[in-house]
Amino acid sequence: MSTEPRRVVIFDTTLRDGEQSPGCSMNLEEKLEVAQALVDLGVDVIEAGFPIASPGDFEAVREIARTVRGSTICGLARCNEKDIDRAWEALKDAPDARIHVFLATSAIHREFKLRMDKDEIIARAVEGVKRAKGYCDNIEFSPEDAARTEPDFLSAVVEAAIDAGATTVNIPDTVGYATPSHFASVIKTLMNRVPNIDRAVVSVHCHNDLGLAVANSLSAVEHGAGQIECTINGIGERAGNCSLEEVVMAMRTRSDYYHTTTRINTPRLVPTSRLLTNITGMQVQRNKAIVGRNAFAHEAGIHQDGMLKERTTYEIMRPEDVGFTHTDLVLGKHSGRAALADRAKALGYHLTGEQLQEVFDEFKKLADKKKEVYDADVAALIEKRMNVVEDQWRLAAFEVHAVGGAEPTVSVTLDHGGEQLSRTTTGGDGPLDALFRTIEEITGVSVTVRDFRVHSVTRGKDAQGESTIEVDHNGRICRGRGVSTDTVEAATLAFLNAINRVVAGAGQPVEARPHDVV
Amino acid sequence: MSTEPRRVVIFDTTLRDGEQSPGCSMNLEEKLEVAQALVDLGVDVIEAGFPIASPGDFEAVREIARTVRGSTICGLARCNEKDIDRAWEALKDAPDARIHVFLATSAIHREFKLRMDKDEIIARAVEGVKRAKGYCDNIEFSPEDAARTEPDFLSAVVEAAIDAGATTVNIPDTVGYATPSHFASVIKTLMNRVPNIDRAVVSVHCHNDLGLAVANSLSAVEHGAGQIECTINGIGERAGNCSLEEVVMAMRTRSDYYHTTTRINTPRLVPTSRLLTNITGMQVQRNKAIVGRNAFAHEAGIHQDGMLKERTTYEIMRPEDVGFTHTDLVLGKHSGRAALADRAKALGYHLTGEQLQEVFDEFKKLADKKKEVYDADVAALIEKRMNVVEDQWRLAAFEVHAVGGAEPTVSVTLDHGGEQLSRTTTGGDGPLDALFRTIEEITGVSVTVRDFRVHSVTRGKDAQGESTIEVDHNGRICRGRGVSTDTVEAATLAFLNAINRVVAGAGQPVEARPHDVV
Repeated sequence: MSTEPRRVVIFDTTLRDGEQSPGCSMNLEEKLEVAQALVDLGVDVIEAGFPIASPGDFEAVREIARTVRGSTICGLARCNEKDIDRAWEALKDAPDARIHVFLATSAIHREFKLRMDKDEIIARAVEGVKRAKGYCDNIEFSPEDAARTEPDFLSAVVEAAIDAGATTVNIPDTVGYATPSHFASVIKTLMNRVPNIDRAVVSVHCHNDLGLAVANSLSAVEHGAGQIECTINGIGERAGNCSLEEVVMAMRTRSDYYHTTTRINTPRLVPTSRLLTNITGMQVQRNKAIVGRNAFAHEAGIHQDGMLKERTTYEIMRPEDVGFTHTDLVLGKHSGRAALADRAKALGYHLTGEQLQEVFDEFKKLADKKKEVYDADVAALIEKRMNVVEDQWRLAAFEVHAVGGAEPTVSVTLDHGGEQLSRTTTGGDGPLDALFRTIEEITGVSVTVRDFRVHSVTRGKDAQGESTIEVDHNGRICRGRGVSTDTVEAATLAFLNAINRVVAGAGQPVEARPHDVV
Repeated sequence: MSTEPRRVVIFDTTLRDGEQSPGCSMNLEEKLEVAQALVDLGVDVIEAGFPIASPGDFEAVREIARTVRGSTICGLARCNEKDIDRAWEALKDAPDARIHVFLATSAIHREFKLRMDKDEIIARAVEGVKRAKGYCDNIEFSPEDAARTEPDFLSAVVEAAIDAGATTVNIPDTVGYATPSHFASVIKTLMNRVPNIDRAVVSVHCHNDLGLAVANSLSAVEHGAGQIECTINGIGERAGNCSLEEVVMAMRTRSDYYHTTTRINTPRLVPTSRLLTNITGMQVQRNKAIVGRNAFAHEAGIHQDGMLKERTTYEIMRPEDVGFTHTDLVLGKHSGRAALADRAKALGYHLTGEQLQEVFDEFKKLADKKKEVYDADVAALIEKRMNVVEDQWRLAAFEVHAVGGAEPTVSVTLDHGGEQLSRTTTGGDGPLDALFRTIEEITGVSVTVRDFRVHSVTRGKDAQGESTIEVDHNGRICRGRGVSTDTVEAATLAFLNAINRVVAGAGQPVEARPHDVV
């Protein structure tokens, strides 16, 4: 037996399973940023989307396939000609593409969703894999709800898919029902019973409904799985997917036990996690393993004492191994463009010359106001720029006059294609509510606020505030984001950003998406 | 073999391991609310605190021991006379008390922290357990960092502790280093090698540094462990502890596999999780298993189609089993005191007659402003009341005049023991920053804002906003919270609440706490 650790393929589905979960939708530019960050992180395969799901999904997979280099680019397709053809159309410009075809196999899915018998399932799977194989060599097949599929039938489907040309067979625990020992037995059965199993990589895709996605993935790896499907911050449908940062750091920290390695550049874990949080506005909880704010915080006194004497008393990983830095104080008013470009790159952003100039102009204004410009300030500036590209309405001016308890008076001036529209109103629950109502009146767009947040992204009284908002416009959900050192302005910008997305027709009605979770 | 499922004891350490983590500190009244909610949830043992750690910890354990009925009340002590005596002093009024004594046993802890050899450790453990046993029968002993302790030595320590009178032996994975199969082998070894193991309940206490706390706990249960130590929302040092809601629902959903049961009243899981979030201000992430906002959200189209045909296609738990309700619309302006009391109780609060009257008065004011009063509104009103009890400074009036881009002018009037102090200032980054600075000037208390958040707790434009803030005053961290339909007012109240905590001497310097993590 070799003493070399076995390399496990990391398949990231942040842009597919993650992106389709409520609160995580991204626009094209945001998806491209995430894809590039995943390359920098060292992800082997990027599942970029589900091309047939919507024109936006198609365009994102196509752009990523055309421009992102350094990882395999994968697109999802149901097991039918139309889906597979559309997936290939999106993927064909990638030098290293994979088509991922899926079909449900469990009894409950066969009966209630597909209304197909076992033979029909196998025939359909074989047809699908063969059609995909006509386009490219790298084919992944997933029997959806595999963890609840009868072992004999699962083995038969997997064998047929490999015979038809699948180079990876992915075993999804679609509903998050597996336990580590149960999932181990599923993988062991396949390894023992499927005669051609050595011709494909066995992959796992675990959901976290019972809090076991990471453990189930590791259990499968212990029994021979060679690929893990996971997402940054564990985002994904319902309770999400296996968290990339947790499963990678578990294999690394316990390499004595798992004897595996990955290609992941672990000091990029925290920056990539923060990039995704900045883009989606979806925070990780403070005690999130690996990337949460408390993950390396030792508050207890005895611990701190122990820590001083010997770090490993209470520390199994070093914060710097996952990309926490001791200080994030970086820039000031005398910092130049090159320094800013450096920090932006370290934070996971890839700016073109023109974009850098725009951000640098904003940076100079900010540095005049603030003595110290932190990494989070820089990230906020970049995010702010990423969010204004599509805006039809821009905030030109606003004024607030509020006496606590009484109805406030606010004035708002918006710019719409060079024309300025102003309105002054009195009423509403406080200044923010009044500002939102006035923007609705000017734009003629009426929405219901589903979620509203403001938080400081940096420290100190001159911190930048970031606001995220989620609005419902006739059943269509749109998010908005705004950043400013003035939190009232940040909130106003966020609301206006959401209105702009409504106007642009962004944010899809949930029901229209033909998405699925593998 | 019996076909009856085995009952596993649920030991909740939200008020001890959870409370000592950054961002989770609670005052006495808040701890009493949580303790009562844990009783309602059906927790078997409540670890209420670490009495010697601080006067606040002592008082909390004593009050919970005196007033909370229905669960065993436990207090933590290091393995020395002073700690154990102090723990008993706090616990003695509880009809059902447990003393929890701990001592580190791993080589690295023996060498670097304790500077004791193996024999000294065993002697100290025996002494500690015997002293505790002199006070009460129910004694738990924890060999700290057990998961990294040599199996032979761990067995010897456990045997000695049981001989000395320990009725529960708890095996902590203090640094979150274990894997499910490794932890199973630790438990199996104890079960096989410790001759008197049948005279004690074997417990586990897992940390989540590698995302494996729930899986490790379940693995131990599979091999005979009879108690799980866990916390609501998985809070706790660093990446937190085993999440109560996840481990309980995993055992319940997969009772076919684990053959275990608990006393937990699962529809109380979501209300208890929300109570803790409301009290600490520490949000769970949206995709948190069981209690996150997305945990039961099925966005994908195919899924929704499948769901319509047969619920179990994609649903392994029903939302109502964990306490999600289909609608939380409950009250309006015509609702009476009894209806409010009912909702408060359903949300996990226990209000005295006087408290109820105060909240009812606020409710009436709110119901005049809002058509629909949601559960979250009611919770916010109660939290608001819980946070003002200690306030020396109260907000009497404020006025804001801000023109976007320019420096705002604000006036604040505070009430201090009946005296009114006012000040008007111009300057700052937006109205909120100006309000905070003006409050600092009036009170003479200067702080650095470490974290600031506002979020809507209910839906719609007339939603209540909740603001939480964390400030640093000469190295001491204080939190503040404020609630209002006006988000600017909510933020101002939160800042003032934090200032009041600074003035009251609340919030401890991190270094002073002699806390430890088991």
